[in-house]
Amino acid sequence: MVRHFEALLEDLRSKLLEMSGLVQSAIRESVRALEASEESDVQSVFKREGAINRLELEIDSISTNLLALEQPVASDLRFITAAGKINNNLERIGDLAVNIAERSKSLIRNPHVEIRTDIPKLADLAESMVGRALEAFVKKDANEARAVLLADDAIDSLRDSIFGGLIRQMKKNPQSVQACVDLMFAARSLERIADHATNIAEAVVFMIEGVDVRHHQAQISS
Amino acid sequence: MVRHFEALLEDLRSKLLEMSGLVQSAIRESVRALEASEESDVQSVFKREGAINRLELEIDSISTNLLALEQPVASDLRFITAAGKINNNLERIGDLAVNIAERSKSLIRNPHVEIRTDIPKLADLAESMVGRALEAFVKKDANEARAVLLADDAIDSLRDSIFGGLIRQMKKNPQSVQACVDLMFAARSLERIADHATNIAEAVVFMIEGVDVRHHQAQISS
Repeated sequence: MVRHFEALLEDLRSKLLEMSGLVQSAIRESVRALEASEESDVQSVFKREGAINRLELEIDSISTNLLALEQPVASDLRFITAAGKINNNLERIGDLAVNIAERSKSLIRNPHVEIRTDIPKLADLAESMVGRALEAFVKKDANEARAVLLADDAIDSLRDSIFGGLIRQMKKNPQSVQACVDLMFAARSLERIADHATNIAEAVVFMIEGVDVRHHQAQISS
Repeated sequence: MVRHFEALLEDLRSKLLEMSGLVQSAIRESVRALEASEESDVQSVFKREGAINRLELEIDSISTNLLALEQPVASDLRFITAAGKINNNLERIGDLAVNIAERSKSLIRNPHVEIRTDIPKLADLAESMVGRALEAFVKKDANEARAVLLADDAIDSLRDSIFGGLIRQMKKNPQSVQACVDLMFAARSLERIADHATNIAEAVVFMIEGVDVRHHQAQISS
């Protein structure tokens, strides 16, 4: 029974790492599609979506089995609970990469004026938050996870400046409206990816320390 | 032990209903703020957010206790798992109501031309999907839950027509850009609320039948 339990736990861990890899590739490709206007990157994100969705179901089913058959306690239970949350957040990040790819597709198809924004900076920041949250999970490093939570303010101010620039651009040049709307929603998806990185980091802190850190920032800042 | 277990389960159920009530009120108020431009509705949504966040943590902590202390099996385990998912989706719906309220605030502050859209229709549809998904949960009605899953197509086509109209409006009248962007993001939030209603309905089907119906629609249609 113990060996079976350990094997299932190991399976959960390795599937989650596979899922992490797929999702990080999807982000990178979607951002490349947006920045380099490559249709092949768009297609590659679309193709990854099916694999990500299947893995999500597999991981959830391993977690459910672990909970039902093995009745784990304490730190194993926290690991399984955290794995479930990380899994769902990764799947959502995969969806957001698809959204970015769809906006890239629209940008590629509709010829538009060149619009300069800080979206590449936002993309770098969001990508690195996801990477660090997952590294914190692998290394069981609560400090690294907490550092991810702090990065969220930079995301918000970058988003505000990108949105402001795009709104000015649309007012100035009505021909650019569709492209600006696409870029706006791509930026919004990147912002949401960063939010999910934050959720993952919170799950990692909970897994390691058993402390629920959600909503605390909101309560302090509001 | 059995009595304690039943009491915790009942506590979980009743807290989840309380959360449902709060979230449904937040949707209604945010939509009213958007349609009737009432600043008091905006404030009321902001105030509800704290209560919703606190309830989310309480519900998650009851679930964790149930899993850790009582090691439930079969249908109880499915109920607790589903409750966790419903809880997280409700909290996200609460966040989206806050987003809509913020857009309403911006619309109220920036004088703008009158823009007619089908957003009220989208709001009705999204609200009713949330209501029906929660009713399916209360009544343990898998058919009602499956009906919610089918409503999603109507949401998508309504969103497309709203977005098309707003883009035309922005091209025609640069003065309306900010208001149109606000309306666009409000529509996007309503669409996401409908997505979360779908997630809740999927969790309800899983709870009743033990069948995971996520991603199946996507696989058929892709």
